Amino acid sequence: MKQFMDKDFLLSTDTAKTLFHDYAAKMPIIDYHCHINPKEIAENRKFDNITQVWLGGDHYKWRQMRSNGVEEKYITGDASDYEKFVKWAEVLQKAIGNPLYHWSHLELQRYFDFNKPLTPATAKECWEVCNAKLQTLTVRDIIEQSNVDIICTTDDPIDSLEWHRMIKADTSFKTRVLPAWRPDKAMNLEKVDYTDYISKLANVSGVKIDSFKSLIEALKVRMDFFAENGCSVSDHALEYVMYKASTEEEIEKIFADRMAGKMPSTEDELKFKTAFMKAVGLEYHRRNWVMQLHYGTIRDNNKLMFRKLGPDTGFDAINTHGSSAEMAAFLNCLVETDQLPKTIIYSLNPADNAAIGTVMGCFQDSSAVGKVQQGSAWWFNDNKTGMIEQMTSLANLGLLSNFVGMLTDSRSFLSYTRHEYFRRILCEMIGNWVENGEYPADYEFLGKMVQDISYNNTNRYFEF
Amino acid sequence: MKQFMDKDFLLSTDTAKTLFHDYAAKMPIIDYHCHINPKEIAENRKFDNITQVWLGGDHYKWRQMRSNGVEEKYITGDASDYEKFVKWAEVLQKAIGNPLYHWSHLELQRYFDFNKPLTPATAKECWEVCNAKLQTLTVRDIIEQSNVDIICTTDDPIDSLEWHRMIKADTSFKTRVLPAWRPDKAMNLEKVDYTDYISKLANVSGVKIDSFKSLIEALKVRMDFFAENGCSVSDHALEYVMYKASTEEEIEKIFADRMAGKMPSTEDELKFKTAFMKAVGLEYHRRNWVMQLHYGTIRDNNKLMFRKLGPDTGFDAINTHGSSAEMAAFLNCLVETDQLPKTIIYSLNPADNAAIGTVMGCFQDSSAVGKVQQGSAWWFNDNKTGMIEQMTSLANLGLLSNFVGMLTDSRSFLSYTRHEYFRRILCEMIGNWVENGEYPADYEFLGKMVQDISYNNTNRYFEF
Amino acid sequence: MKQFMDKDFLLSTDTAKTLFHDYAAKMPIIDYHCHINPKEIAENRKFDNITQVWLGGDHYKWRQMRSNGVEEKYITGDASDYEKFVKWAEVLQKAIGNPLYHWSHLELQRYFDFNKPLTPATAKECWEVCNAKLQTLTVRDIIEQSNVDIICTTDDPIDSLEWHRMIKADTSFKTRVLPAWRPDKAMNLEKVDYTDYISKLANVSGVKIDSFKSLIEALKVRMDFFAENGCSVSDHALEYVMYKASTEEEIEKIFADRMAGKMPSTEDELKFKTAFMKAVGLEYHRRNWVMQLHYGTIRDNNKLMFRKLGPDTGFDAINTHGSSAEMAAFLNCLVETDQLPKTIIYSLNPADNAAIGTVMGCFQDSSAVGKVQQGSAWWFNDNKTGMIEQMTSLANLGLLSNFVGMLTDSRSFLSYTRHEYFRRILCEMIGNWVENGEYPADYEFLGKMVQDISYNNTNRYFEF
Repeated sequence: MKQFMDKDFLLSTDTAKTLFHDYAAKMPIIDYHCHINPKEIAENRKFDNITQVWLGGDHYKWRQMRSNGVEEKYITGDASDYEKFVKWAEVLQKAIGNPLYHWSHLELQRYFDFNKPLTPATAKECWEVCNAKLQTLTVRDIIEQSNVDIICTTDDPIDSLEWHRMIKADTSFKTRVLPAWRPDKAMNLEKVDYTDYISKLANVSGVKIDSFKSLIEALKVRMDFFAENGCSVSDHALEYVMYKASTEEEIEKIFADRMAGKMPSTEDELKFKTAFMKAVGLEYHRRNWVMQLHYGTIRDNNKLMFRKLGPDTGFDAINTHGSSAEMAAFLNCLVETDQLPKTIIYSLNPADNAAIGTVMGCFQDSSAVGKVQQGSAWWFNDNKTGMIEQMTSLANLGLLSNFVGMLTDSRSFLSYTRHEYFRRILCEMIGNWVENGEYPADYEFLGKMVQDISYNNTNRYFEF
Repeated sequence: MKQFMDKDFLLSTDTAKTLFHDYAAKMPIIDYHCHINPKEIAENRKFDNITQVWLGGDHYKWRQMRSNGVEEKYITGDASDYEKFVKWAEVLQKAIGNPLYHWSHLELQRYFDFNKPLTPATAKECWEVCNAKLQTLTVRDIIEQSNVDIICTTDDPIDSLEWHRMIKADTSFKTRVLPAWRPDKAMNLEKVDYTDYISKLANVSGVKIDSFKSLIEALKVRMDFFAENGCSVSDHALEYVMYKASTEEEIEKIFADRMAGKMPSTEDELKFKTAFMKAVGLEYHRRNWVMQLHYGTIRDNNKLMFRKLGPDTGFDAINTHGSSAEMAAFLNCLVETDQLPKTIIYSLNPADNAAIGTVMGCFQDSSAVGKVQQGSAWWFNDNKTGMIEQMTSLANLGLLSNFVGMLTDSRSFLSYTRHEYFRRILCEMIGNWVENGEYPADYEFLGKMVQDISYNNTNRYFEF
Repeated sequence: MKQFMDKDFLLSTDTAKTLFHDYAAKMPIIDYHCHINPKEIAENRKFDNITQVWLGGDHYKWRQMRSNGVEEKYITGDASDYEKFVKWAEVLQKAIGNPLYHWSHLELQRYFDFNKPLTPATAKECWEVCNAKLQTLTVRDIIEQSNVDIICTTDDPIDSLEWHRMIKADTSFKTRVLPAWRPDKAMNLEKVDYTDYISKLANVSGVKIDSFKSLIEALKVRMDFFAENGCSVSDHALEYVMYKASTEEEIEKIFADRMAGKMPSTEDELKFKTAFMKAVGLEYHRRNWVMQLHYGTIRDNNKLMFRKLGPDTGFDAINTHGSSAEMAAFLNCLVETDQLPKTIIYSLNPADNAAIGTVMGCFQDSSAVGKVQQGSAWWFNDNKTGMIEQMTSLANLGLLSNFVGMLTDSRSFLSYTRHEYFRRILCEMIGNWVENGEYPADYEFLGKMVQDISYNNTNRYFEF
């Protein structure tokens, strides 16, 4: 029996151990997609206690607490931080097979030198150990200790990027913190506050927005601003990757109607979103930005809780609706004129792995190595089996060696250990192939391969 | 090499063996969803021979016989029971990797002390051994020997429940046999005999049914009656979990039209079924009943055979159509007013595992531990890989520890060994995690966990 | 650690080794579905170099080269054959976990006695070794050396089958090369050149085609001709297996309109295709032909490259759209009158495995053993995990023992080693079950089983 989460955690073969310890572990981290708040880096936030770090905004943990019948008081309510922590310890002990079990213990081991399992019995000790460390552990300390090279946050086009500029100006902090462009609010014309948003965008960009054409112009102004601040990555949250053709006139009419207060039909919504995605996609190509497409989500499913807590509080799910044919048609509408940007596709539905792997294979070309990528196992799939399935599919259908690898997608500063988790799983997979005689035991080449997937591919692909 | 199906069948690690033999094996069984006939328990049926028990109504076996080109004469026709048994032995030998192979041999081992593989060569001996045992083995013997605590049958609202009452009255039989409420016929207004059924329901309930409102009133009368007879579980067979909003007036018109002989459009059918499910869901919440949703089926696909043999004869399949967004919308229509009952969701499509796991995570709350559950791998998924996939998904997305676990869904009295099969697979999964250093080797806690999943969770959840 | 791709490649247990080496390996090959050009067999083609064999038309390899950012010049362009080969060697080294890695090395080992890994460092040596062998190695040598009994090509109804007849006439070549009937062009009335095709079909058949009825008559004339030339297998490429009912009058009108130049609506297209498939299905039943349904593809997704290179050049993908209910309805429309032919169903979407397994179980009968089959893991699924998943699903839901097994679906004469790859994986799966105590270690029966799946089942099923 292997010891609980020791140095060879998840590594069962000599090849896996060699590849991880001698090659992968030492590589820096590029966290090219996350949701941390740059203000907290700029201000170099400290936390009073482990509950603030762990349970402050982590809807993954909140969901599991609700699954265990914990009262909302101990989750998002007014119970004390210690009470919340103890409730979490009870839940965690029950989370066998759940990624939170490994994530949490990796974080305790790496950042707090707490190496016991967290249980109700050890909760008090753990609370004290962590809080003592947190007296001096700032978010910059965590980032530096994690060997993080670059962080990309997620930002709205109207964002001032003031915190990014402040961080950049501070030469004492070596990690680059770059904005990423997420213009969902400019696309989602079915939202009730869409016109308000367009007004704000007009103000910030200085462009009078009275047409779809001028909307795109305003966005270009903001893209220039984002680019000046180091941005070269976009990101889109889509229900699915849709494609519905239309004419310019139709799009202008749909937009004009919406600005006049008339909500679009479903068909018009799809036409508008398709046109929007094509327009920004062309811009990304021109600017050599990466286009990230995150799809397959249905959000805020529990209206009772949405009214109490708002969005991003643990009430999202997988959307099984999605069409690989529309996804291919969308990519084709950019490639037809040879203007497809580098693209990363993520689906929340793991049943889409193979479809994505085959669609992306239709759009590769010599303008970049691995130009179209399947994103790392995302959100609900970000666990051991999800990663194995995504990488197995990727290896079957394309070149795993060219994979740009892991990102945290996290709201927490402690999540960098997920890169370690990913690298262990990667090395274990490769180790199994080698030990099973399915690939030669050429450690020089394999060592480079795991280092590429851990860091070098990302660095080359994004051209930060 | 491990011996064929010995005492450590499916258990490859010491941890798995300890968890199974010392903890899981001894727990009683609560079979909270099955299709056995309570009359046969009331009358304490005996069987003349093993063909009657095994091949009398088991469409799982019939399908495999047809897959092997066996003539219908030897399946549902007039061949002798022995001839049928020999044909089955031929087919079984070819069923490597099929759950029937393990189910059948577990049944032979546990109930008949027949420990050889069943093949054409051993068929005669097996026939004799089993039939000798069956001279004295009644269905109550089988149930008691299987350590079954509670059985829930599947019953129509118009059922008299006479056999349940008879069983209850007989204090010599300790196992509780409870009805479960399955009102499909009251919902499926697209069926040709719908109005006939409504007449019968009106008669039995004493409620004049001349509106949707009075239909629900009639069902409430019957729910009272079912509750008096120990029922606290409902069950629904759905093509998919649909959600299509409507007004009260629309529903009343659709119902009135149908009673006047006018068949509904597809859209009206969906509106009606949504309204029906919402109405009964509210009732279940009020009564603290569990709502079971079984979806993803297309039934009676072979019309040639349907005309010969009728329903439930082995001609059903997986429906790939289904929308997680509609499923979430349906659950939301109950939760919005905080009236969602405890709910168990089963899909026949294994590609839905992750979607279900994420949808249910949106509706958990402190009114019950694990309030919304994914049901155990169902029907065509009720096999080793299906169970591993369902439990792996469950563990990844929620708390496996809170799982209410196994049920037989069976028409046969010999199926209780499927609980053993499930428990072995569960202990093997947990054993692998522990031996691989992914969870601490805390046998006290783990022992309780497997006992919870085997029995205690079910007992607590259903509140029988 | 196992040696790289040695004689026990993919075989980890003694049972697997015994079953492969003593039973499976020696069986001949029936390659009942492929895309090789019979002209090259008739003329007994030789190749100048390994690039011609490997990269001449293999869009699997082209895709991976594009995934690695290789310029089209080195893929389908005018670079030298040696330059192309070196580029491929670079890509192959990066293809860990990809079936091409194993296919390529099996081909190097079996046909060229080249047993090193192909890398940039060994490329020159490999090039020379292969090309030396190719001076004397003809396609007939490859086929004979591979122990191929029967090959079915893929042919259009208007094909003259001249090469098949020439091969048959040459008694010095023992392998039978039979045509297979692929009438897609007669069905796809949405194509711009449909009327041209119908003219050609009329010419070749001698039937005046002025109605749907006469279209089917023309096809029957051609089926007679194909049958005379040894054909007993049909094949259809479908976006999905659709079912949309219609009247004869509707179909005649849709066809007449199309011949008059009017393109069909989507609904009319589906009605026409359903009627077409039913009409030919009835004919297949009458003639005892096998009906192969390949579905789940979206083709030619990259219009930029399509304009440059045409179809079948590596720009196809998985179609996630598909309805098991329509598939069942289509099969039912043939079975209702007891006229369903032997049928093999392949989906490109691996998420459909279980749905296919359950649909086919509804249509088995005693007219053939394993009458309805799920085809072997197809195209993008033709890899180790894809085959394991397809066979595991098959075993769970039906009788793996009756499986008609592997085919290459290949355009290359070197692909017969894929049968070896399949047999190794099959023996490994069965070995694992046996060694794990899940099936008795009855080698006589198991040996027959793997020989059946490797060869005997195919031979019996197709009745060539």
